[in-house]
Amino acid sequence: MTHGQSSSAEAKATVIDGKAVAAEIIAKVAVETGRLIAAGGVAPGLAVVLVGDDAASQVYVGAKGRKATELGFHSVQHTLPLSTSEAEVLAIVGELNRDPAIHGILVQLPLPRHIDTTKVIEAIDPAKDVDGFHPINVGRLAIGERDRALVSCTPAGCLLLIQRVLGDLAGKNALVIGRSNIVGKPMAQLLLQESCTVTVAHSRSRDLPGLARQADIIVAAVGRPEMVRGDWIKPGAVIIDVGMNRIPAPERGQGKTRLVGDVAYAEAAAVASAITPVPGGVGPMTIAMLMANTLTAACRAAGKPEPTF
Amino acid sequence: MTHGQSSSAEAKATVIDGKAVAAEIIAKVAVETGRLIAAGGVAPGLAVVLVGDDAASQVYVGAKGRKATELGFHSVQHTLPLSTSEAEVLAIVGELNRDPAIHGILVQLPLPRHIDTTKVIEAIDPAKDVDGFHPINVGRLAIGERDRALVSCTPAGCLLLIQRVLGDLAGKNALVIGRSNIVGKPMAQLLLQESCTVTVAHSRSRDLPGLARQADIIVAAVGRPEMVRGDWIKPGAVIIDVGMNRIPAPERGQGKTRLVGDVAYAEAAAVASAITPVPGGVGPMTIAMLMANTLTAACRAAGKPEPTF
Repeated sequence: MTHGQSSSAEAKATVIDGKAVAAEIIAKVAVETGRLIAAGGVAPGLAVVLVGDDAASQVYVGAKGRKATELGFHSVQHTLPLSTSEAEVLAIVGELNRDPAIHGILVQLPLPRHIDTTKVIEAIDPAKDVDGFHPINVGRLAIGERDRALVSCTPAGCLLLIQRVLGDLAGKNALVIGRSNIVGKPMAQLLLQESCTVTVAHSRSRDLPGLARQADIIVAAVGRPEMVRGDWIKPGAVIIDVGMNRIPAPERGQGKTRLVGDVAYAEAAAVASAITPVPGGVGPMTIAMLMANTLTAACRAAGKPEPTF
Repeated sequence: MTHGQSSSAEAKATVIDGKAVAAEIIAKVAVETGRLIAAGGVAPGLAVVLVGDDAASQVYVGAKGRKATELGFHSVQHTLPLSTSEAEVLAIVGELNRDPAIHGILVQLPLPRHIDTTKVIEAIDPAKDVDGFHPINVGRLAIGERDRALVSCTPAGCLLLIQRVLGDLAGKNALVIGRSNIVGKPMAQLLLQESCTVTVAHSRSRDLPGLARQADIIVAAVGRPEMVRGDWIKPGAVIIDVGMNRIPAPERGQGKTRLVGDVAYAEAAAVASAITPVPGGVGPMTIAMLMANTLTAACRAAGKPEPTF
């Protein structure tokens, strides 16, 4: 955690340094991986399946593979042509399910249209579903069995950032903006489990500014550039910005762009007590939690105690 | 739906007649059961498993069995002594899973302490889990695959009552008080799916009256007699009272009791636009939705179209 950036005279908020927190988690994963191996376990194994040649997906998959290798994981990547059939993808998932050297299976989304995403996700052994997307993992999180579930990486990372700032969350009013299966809904479940009063808002919600002004914690995950304004924020609130929106930045030159979140950063930083920047906030946490989930799955497979993050 | 009871000069709210709505659902289940059988399907089969001799559980199980028989369902009841082992319960569940005449399996809760409830619930074939408690059903509801899930009966019934009064729920502010796995959490998921802005409050929430005053819909499911007061309610709100609390009623004679909900009925009825009474509101809906779920499971097993409720 570093204090308010000097670049904005207005900013009062603590900048939540996701990069630094993620690095701590990665360091812990490294230590615990060594411990697991020393205790007679095998190295955690992560398999990533990529279908097609989407450029962004290639970047993500590459980053995940490198981080896994860096940590001493067994890392496998299946890169399949766009023409791959659903049956072929299911066959690979089946093989990975049976492979005792693989503890985590991640099928990079989105899949091409001719493949049924739900079918593929449900084919993954829930114990290896390190993305936390299998309905049985979603269900276990919802019914309070997080210790038997694997939880979606981005919201799990957001929760850790919030807890770093606030400690115990019981009784806090939390607003989650966005109701995706990947971020909004599991985020709400995690905050509810921490005894927040949780509100989920979305595109059909009325008076979003009014809802936001009552929140001690706001998690914005809608994909609309700088939608959450400074005057929506209760003084002292903690703001987690999951958005990653590329917008034109003509001030940087013709055709240039820049990344912004779902929160108008400078305005929000003048009111909030703590805020995640974009980039460098939530982003780095996602990959760190993926590594943590893979280690967790490996510990469970080996019948060894799992570290807490 | 009947209009404000004349017994209270104050009451303005429509009394939501759960008994009448439940009767309509039961009638539809009867018609659709006939249609399924006529189309070459088998009669829906419901098996109820009861362990021990808890008096309340016996009453519930008896009512479920009678309703199933009345509807022409194949109805089976396993009543097992308190001393039954977990392995014996699991063996019975396994047999019922394999029995093609059985489409719905309900293990009456609570189970005796020496039996692991989670293990028993997870042993039920999710396609036969008519209580909607299996994590895969919970997960499918959460990720928006309600058409492949079976949904917990009480919140599914509450949703129908709310829709009867309000029609389209998009953009309504809904407050769910209580975060149980059986009512509060699935209720929140259902309301979110209907595009409500959903807040879940509970024992750790601050300023519950303030939260309630912003709600267009309140579902109270906490088990605290008459906790929700009239002055917590926004004029015109719709109030669903899941509570069933037995309290002393000395005015009825020594040792007498009466049933009240989680909402102070007379006060609330003076402010709300519609309210469920206790008894006769949510209660009858639960058993109706159990029958609807069993029919749904039977239609799916037979590969026949399922009716919507």
